[in-house]
Amino acid sequence: MSKVRLGIIGLGAQGGAYAGFIAEGKVPNMVIGAICDTDPEKKAVAAEKYPDVPFYDNYIDMLESGDVDAVVTCVPHYLHPEMGIEALKRDVHALVEKPAGVYTKQVRELNEFAATKPELTFGIMFNQRTNELYQKVKQIVDNGEIGKIRRTNWIITTWWRPQGYYDQSAWRATWEGEGGGVLVNQAPHQLDLLQWIAGMPKKVYSNVKYGYQRDIAVEDEVTALLDYGNGATGVFITATHDIMGTDRFEIHGDNGKIVVDDSKKVTIKRLRKPESEMSATMSMMDVAKIFMGGDTDDLYEEEVIEFESVWGAQHSAVMENFAANILDGTPLLAPGSDGINGVALANAIHLSSWLGKEVELPVDEDLYFDELQKKIEEEKLNPIKK
Amino acid sequence: MSKVRLGIIGLGAQGGAYAGFIAEGKVPNMVIGAICDTDPEKKAVAAEKYPDVPFYDNYIDMLESGDVDAVVTCVPHYLHPEMGIEALKRDVHALVEKPAGVYTKQVRELNEFAATKPELTFGIMFNQRTNELYQKVKQIVDNGEIGKIRRTNWIITTWWRPQGYYDQSAWRATWEGEGGGVLVNQAPHQLDLLQWIAGMPKKVYSNVKYGYQRDIAVEDEVTALLDYGNGATGVFITATHDIMGTDRFEIHGDNGKIVVDDSKKVTIKRLRKPESEMSATMSMMDVAKIFMGGDTDDLYEEEVIEFESVWGAQHSAVMENFAANILDGTPLLAPGSDGINGVALANAIHLSSWLGKEVELPVDEDLYFDELQKKIEEEKLNPIKK
Repeated sequence: MSKVRLGIIGLGAQGGAYAGFIAEGKVPNMVIGAICDTDPEKKAVAAEKYPDVPFYDNYIDMLESGDVDAVVTCVPHYLHPEMGIEALKRDVHALVEKPAGVYTKQVRELNEFAATKPELTFGIMFNQRTNELYQKVKQIVDNGEIGKIRRTNWIITTWWRPQGYYDQSAWRATWEGEGGGVLVNQAPHQLDLLQWIAGMPKKVYSNVKYGYQRDIAVEDEVTALLDYGNGATGVFITATHDIMGTDRFEIHGDNGKIVVDDSKKVTIKRLRKPESEMSATMSMMDVAKIFMGGDTDDLYEEEVIEFESVWGAQHSAVMENFAANILDGTPLLAPGSDGINGVALANAIHLSSWLGKEVELPVDEDLYFDELQKKIEEEKLNPIKK
Repeated sequence: MSKVRLGIIGLGAQGGAYAGFIAEGKVPNMVIGAICDTDPEKKAVAAEKYPDVPFYDNYIDMLESGDVDAVVTCVPHYLHPEMGIEALKRDVHALVEKPAGVYTKQVRELNEFAATKPELTFGIMFNQRTNELYQKVKQIVDNGEIGKIRRTNWIITTWWRPQGYYDQSAWRATWEGEGGGVLVNQAPHQLDLLQWIAGMPKKVYSNVKYGYQRDIAVEDEVTALLDYGNGATGVFITATHDIMGTDRFEIHGDNGKIVVDDSKKVTIKRLRKPESEMSATMSMMDVAKIFMGGDTDDLYEEEVIEFESVWGAQHSAVMENFAANILDGTPLLAPGSDGINGVALANAIHLSSWLGKEVELPVDEDLYFDELQKKIEEEKLNPIKK
């Protein structure tokens, strides 16, 4: 095999974009093996744009056709786990879209099945992991350059969406159709980066606003308080109603601090001695000297790195890395099994707000599933008018 | 009366500074009427520095001496309410140090008594209210320029204190001596500014770390999640162990946003139309245009104002304003009765962490008082070794 033949399940916005990337040669180790969509209009689109590519209206048929080595699941979130399992079952490599699923129960089933097929490649579309800025931040933290983490704080409210976005389709921003709002649709990128860089919290308390500034059933604003169980804490804030949104990620550690502004600029402060040593040895006179215009150079060195935005190339980079893993074993940037962490965080944040109390991770899968079914039932009885 | 004769109760760091301000003429409408301290060493200091000023070792004697028109209470927090009441009872104007007290029960008693003496001036040393930056921010919010508040977020971790600060005296950072840590000693300024500008929340949930990075019984790190009861939320974070501390205050409203960096720079974004109107009328195409390098000038105008630090002059400005209110009725910048709000917030944050759940404001005063007594008892049994 010199190029991976990718089967694209779902020719919507994402699937269409991925087909375009491959057709334009942006993913040099991939070709479009086949396209699948249940919508006849998409069949016509495919016939016009990709006349030589086989088309299926049933993804199982595509999986069994021999036309594809791998698939990507550009379908509603709920379907990612089952499609991933069906592909792997037929020895077809699987790249699942984010989030890996809506609830951890289904994602765990996917992960458990994938673990029985270690010879197959199982990836997830965490395109932000190809972002050099976050790779650098992860490297600094992993190297221990800022010491043990004391506090994380991410305000990521740049996910502005107007009401028209939510009104595009009936399933959008419903419990039955998407299983959540900003937590399952926009913020999974940051939920993944946060846990990738700082690890998973042990406990979560949240204040979640459902249909606060938009006419939707699901959440459009989230404030979550994280407890890492070792003294460290965190705050995660996201929303879809701030058109002047903030993107500011701060990580404070025993020996330093990282501040990421607008996913573009990283400011790293490395203390010259651990903070605990400064605390043990400095007097209030020293403190007064520093804060009344003294030189902070004695305390820490500061490094500022600016990054170009690489938004456009991220998705094709994940696809290329996924194909390279299939072809020559190149390590995966985003192993599929990592997808469960962001889903677990989103589930914990929902559940805490539903129960009105702090919850421990991992949350009770069955309890989350049952509570989600209640939301779906309520929504059927009292649909949000659009 | 042409100048107010101030009685200074407590000639420690603050009381000594205030005496200096008056002696240096920085408070033109005040003279030092008398000084009071229970410590004989302070008597010697006063005799040397202010030989012509009457000295008392009992504040009641000073209140009844006829030497003073007003007093300022530069004594441990627990004593502020009782000293305020004793002064007002004797028709002596009272300027209480912040915080107004340790628990709302005692502060309410002070406020209720002060309300029976409307002819007297009752102020509190919220020196940050004289800061032009925060006056400007309050004015913008009060004018409705950013619309109804949706979210507040203040990370104020610039209150770094080394272990040596806590070890200066036995009562420092104990439940019995101070009744708390960063919430009652350093952050009352920001707790007051936050409620002054954005109003009081209705509910609070907190994660508070006691003796996390310092060898103390009380809190050195606080994360509080505020709910304003009308959909709006807030986060308040403070700590004494971040030597590269952050000071970033963000207020997001229906029609704009204010970001205050380092208590020096204010960035104000005023939307050209309310966000709700933009949400109702913009398509995802419009959104894509804006976020893919379009001109945000169409959305909002941005104003940036930089302020000089005025730290040194703040305390004398409060004293001058307090004296002016006595002399000619100039409106008080910081009425004493406002002091209860910051104490109520601090109490709610403590109580939420002690009970492990969200609490409503105002908190149950007796419950808070009882829980505080338990901390004091525990501390007696298991004192933190220093």
